[in-house]
Amino acid sequence: MAGTTQPSQATKDEVELRELIARWSKAVRDEDLTAIRADHDPKILMFDVPPPFLSRGIDAYMATWQTFFASSAKPVVFDFEDVEITAGDDVAFATAVGHCINIERNGEKTNLKFRLTMGFRKHDGRWRIVHEHHSLPAID
Amino acid sequence: MAGTTQPSQATKDEVELRELIARWSKAVRDEDLTAIRADHDPKILMFDVPPPFLSRGIDAYMATWQTFFASSAKPVVFDFEDVEITAGDDVAFATAVGHCINIERNGEKTNLKFRLTMGFRKHDGRWRIVHEHHSLPAID
Repeated sequence: MAGTTQPSQATKDEVELRELIARWSKAVRDEDLTAIRADHDPKILMFDVPPPFLSRGIDAYMATWQTFFASSAKPVVFDFEDVEITAGDDVAFATAVGHCINIERNGEKTNLKFRLTMGFRKHDGRWRIVHEHHSLPAID
Repeated sequence: MAGTTQPSQATKDEVELRELIARWSKAVRDEDLTAIRADHDPKILMFDVPPPFLSRGIDAYMATWQTFFASSAKPVVFDFEDVEITAGDDVAFATAVGHCINIERNGEKTNLKFRLTMGFRKHDGRWRIVHEHHSLPAID
């Protein structure tokens, strides 16, 4: 239609990446292991909140979710705010602030606010997560 | 010269980003505040090892270095290994493993191994750091 502005490719990429993050975080809330890994590169490099120091490859990445679910309150809380996307043609990254609820060894529930950075690559028109970095500030 | 292969733009970008990280880490070792901030975007978003939870903008970013220098052994150790660059035309990110030496409150020196993610944007042909995420795994 004359006068209609088409969304730019940059806008489309940002929308796709926001949808990807929303799918992934919902998959975590649903404890759906197949959906959690659906948009990941086989060589993903993970820097997670708890040890190990790093996890490389999709199998090591999925093992970090077993650790997470073992100490997460149920139903799982895993929500993000302040999601910011920086997207180029085929490389992008995102930052966000996350929330989850951890069950401590003494049984107490702790609300955790954590930092998230994600790195993406587009292959054959499809964005994939190649890097995740989740962290808390160190205890002072 | 016929037959000479020119480096691709992707290779040039990776070389530029490795040089940028090397300049920045040398500036930290030299405690050169002007050089530390030379390649940063004014709106940099920093997720650092110690609190605060996040720092936004170059002034808040530079304040994190005062915190670092106050508890760093001298001369400053600030080295990286396993630097991996993922570069597109105008967006890139890098991951690495860093080393520094912290002086604890009791005066003991502790070797710290930390995770680094950096996010970059290219403006007017020049790469700038728009995001840094430094962290340790949480204490178990």
